[in-house]
Amino acid sequence: MKILVINAGSSSIKYQLLDMEAGKPLASGIVERIGDDMGSLTHKAFMGTPKEFKESIECPFPTHKEGMHEVVRLLTDPEKGVIKDSSEIAGIGHRIVHGGELFSTPVEVTAEVLQGIRDVIPLAPLHNPGHVIGIEVATELFPGVRQVVVFDTAFHQTMEPKAFMYGIPYEYYEEFGLRRYGAHGTSHKYVAREAAKVLGKPLEECNLVTVHLGNGASLSAVKNGKCIDTSMGLTPLGGIIMGTRCGDIDPAVVGFISEKKGMSAADVVKMLTNESGLKGICGSNDLRDIHARIEKGDERAELALDMATHRVRQFIGSYFFELGKVDAIIFTAGIGENDPVYRAKSCSDLENFGIVMDSDKNLNWDRTPSAISADSSPVKVLVIATNEELEIANDTVAVLGL
Amino acid sequence: MKILVINAGSSSIKYQLLDMEAGKPLASGIVERIGDDMGSLTHKAFMGTPKEFKESIECPFPTHKEGMHEVVRLLTDPEKGVIKDSSEIAGIGHRIVHGGELFSTPVEVTAEVLQGIRDVIPLAPLHNPGHVIGIEVATELFPGVRQVVVFDTAFHQTMEPKAFMYGIPYEYYEEFGLRRYGAHGTSHKYVAREAAKVLGKPLEECNLVTVHLGNGASLSAVKNGKCIDTSMGLTPLGGIIMGTRCGDIDPAVVGFISEKKGMSAADVVKMLTNESGLKGICGSNDLRDIHARIEKGDERAELALDMATHRVRQFIGSYFFELGKVDAIIFTAGIGENDPVYRAKSCSDLENFGIVMDSDKNLNWDRTPSAISADSSPVKVLVIATNEELEIANDTVAVLGL
Repeated sequence: MKILVINAGSSSIKYQLLDMEAGKPLASGIVERIGDDMGSLTHKAFMGTPKEFKESIECPFPTHKEGMHEVVRLLTDPEKGVIKDSSEIAGIGHRIVHGGELFSTPVEVTAEVLQGIRDVIPLAPLHNPGHVIGIEVATELFPGVRQVVVFDTAFHQTMEPKAFMYGIPYEYYEEFGLRRYGAHGTSHKYVAREAAKVLGKPLEECNLVTVHLGNGASLSAVKNGKCIDTSMGLTPLGGIIMGTRCGDIDPAVVGFISEKKGMSAADVVKMLTNESGLKGICGSNDLRDIHARIEKGDERAELALDMATHRVRQFIGSYFFELGKVDAIIFTAGIGENDPVYRAKSCSDLENFGIVMDSDKNLNWDRTPSAISADSSPVKVLVIATNEELEIANDTVAVLGL
Repeated sequence: MKILVINAGSSSIKYQLLDMEAGKPLASGIVERIGDDMGSLTHKAFMGTPKEFKESIECPFPTHKEGMHEVVRLLTDPEKGVIKDSSEIAGIGHRIVHGGELFSTPVEVTAEVLQGIRDVIPLAPLHNPGHVIGIEVATELFPGVRQVVVFDTAFHQTMEPKAFMYGIPYEYYEEFGLRRYGAHGTSHKYVAREAAKVLGKPLEECNLVTVHLGNGASLSAVKNGKCIDTSMGLTPLGGIIMGTRCGDIDPAVVGFISEKKGMSAADVVKMLTNESGLKGICGSNDLRDIHARIEKGDERAELALDMATHRVRQFIGSYFFELGKVDAIIFTAGIGENDPVYRAKSCSDLENFGIVMDSDKNLNWDRTPSAISADSSPVKVLVIATNEELEIANDTVAVLGL
């Protein structure tokens, strides 16, 4: 069975065609700069086989439709295609950034669901409009194929109000839905379930702290398999220090900068989103670069890494107190999977809380879901490669009953 | 020996004259609405003695000078005064809200120090100008008396950059001193030292989490007697949820509200400062009122209390991870001293982290610095009444070598 996973942005489409028996992608790629004078498409197929190839195309894609059309052409190409025609696609799963409070599980696309995603646009003005277009184009190009939407916020909908509400006038919640929603839910959910397998007990009995560290990053506290807290907020700017984002701070900072620099609140938020975080402190948000500079004695690079991991430790500490007893901490995503120094700085010297790292295992993690803590460590520290596309495909299969 | 402690605001002067042998106030009071058509002065003296009295005066105080003059008249009144004349005052200690990075200890007032306090005005525009006036008036009215300034930020100046820096472009720190400064330092320092006495070991060997819960509120992590982290930020809006303040949040909330309501960043920050926190959630920031409403089943009041104590628990958890090993958690200030429910909600069900509350002791705390945790609790939970005036007076004596 083959499932197509689509992540449509305002001017891009990421896609992956998965073979569900193998749980692996047959093809994947990205269409970029849709609507620009010149667009691009990068396509890979037959990964991990002798037939593997990668193709890059430069041409204008006036709308998402032309982009998706070209993807279908590549997928079904008589010579280089991975399928004969689109009837081989059993279902389509769409990644949706924001489901607001309307969606707490994946659901099949209907006119009502599509309208729901539109209704949430005020909370995700940069993302949900692209998702809507992606669904509309897929409906047109794959007329017989059922579609499912999987929300990045859904996993966090089990949080209690004390965790998701901000201490601001209640009417902002009632009128605008202003609250903490969280992000990366598909990843947190995927690694939580994989962690339960590693721990050898049902997810419903696992207390976990999941640490998703990509360019965007968030932590979740998972109690008996359900999310009870997460670090990201109303928007992806909240929580910990990220590549270019500042995370939660004294909100008076926005007013202070606005006054000092004569900037609007929107411009300050843009700066806090794109020019801050690691990049704001040391000029770079590339951790390889940061590590290289630290090696050479660059103090600003060291400060940036110290600050970011300090905040991760603070959140882990908070979530330990919320969970009471913790089975495992799980690192995942780009930085979480590839940066042993970042992991060590986030979890070292915490033996009093049952966290005993194994530095060899941490340095030599082999990409299988496994522990980097000592065998004797009461709290396990795991690294698990995330796979949001597989999670979306699995959800698609489950919702459609395939 | 008698020390006069002054806390001068933009339109008010709080004062206390302390007898340092007894460590107790002889007189105290507040001048309010300085500069208004009609001002007021409330004065108490001989507290705890048969001669105790309270006097309220309504009259205009055009400037701080007239207000302070009236205070001197009351203190030295032939019949009702506590001293014969102002030469009995051995020293004056001023509370200063903000010392920026210039001041990390109390210092004697000099022209240079006064200029330093003026230089920090951009970081505390609502407070430091009043402090400057208070010092100038005291210099004029008490010509022979040496003065000391005690900074609310000084105790936190031992924080490392990883704890005090925000993840925003570094130049904002260089150009504007934009960083976390903290607040209530005098109170955190006072209760930390008192806690060491209760624990029976030197402050330099104590790891503490101090929890100052007044209408403004903050927590500090104290390692070997030094502050290594605190919850308040650039301004008193940061950190935990307070009476009317929201604490740290996703800063995009400021932009979101600004856009939805057409408010400037400054107006949003004002709303987050004055209309948020407990008051924003349930309409009241009076905890007696909140408890009474919870008794009657008011869900919004319960949510407000749940949210506020949830954040306190999160910060305590963070600080446990920063400290590694903790000797005691100390509650102080209005709510910390008077609200056993607030304390219980902040510290219950944390036995896994060595915190075992004693509910009887918590309910029946007798205002002496003492534990409300079980005798067997590895981490002690203490309640200690704060005394910022005494701390300022002690600092004044120490700095002046009296």
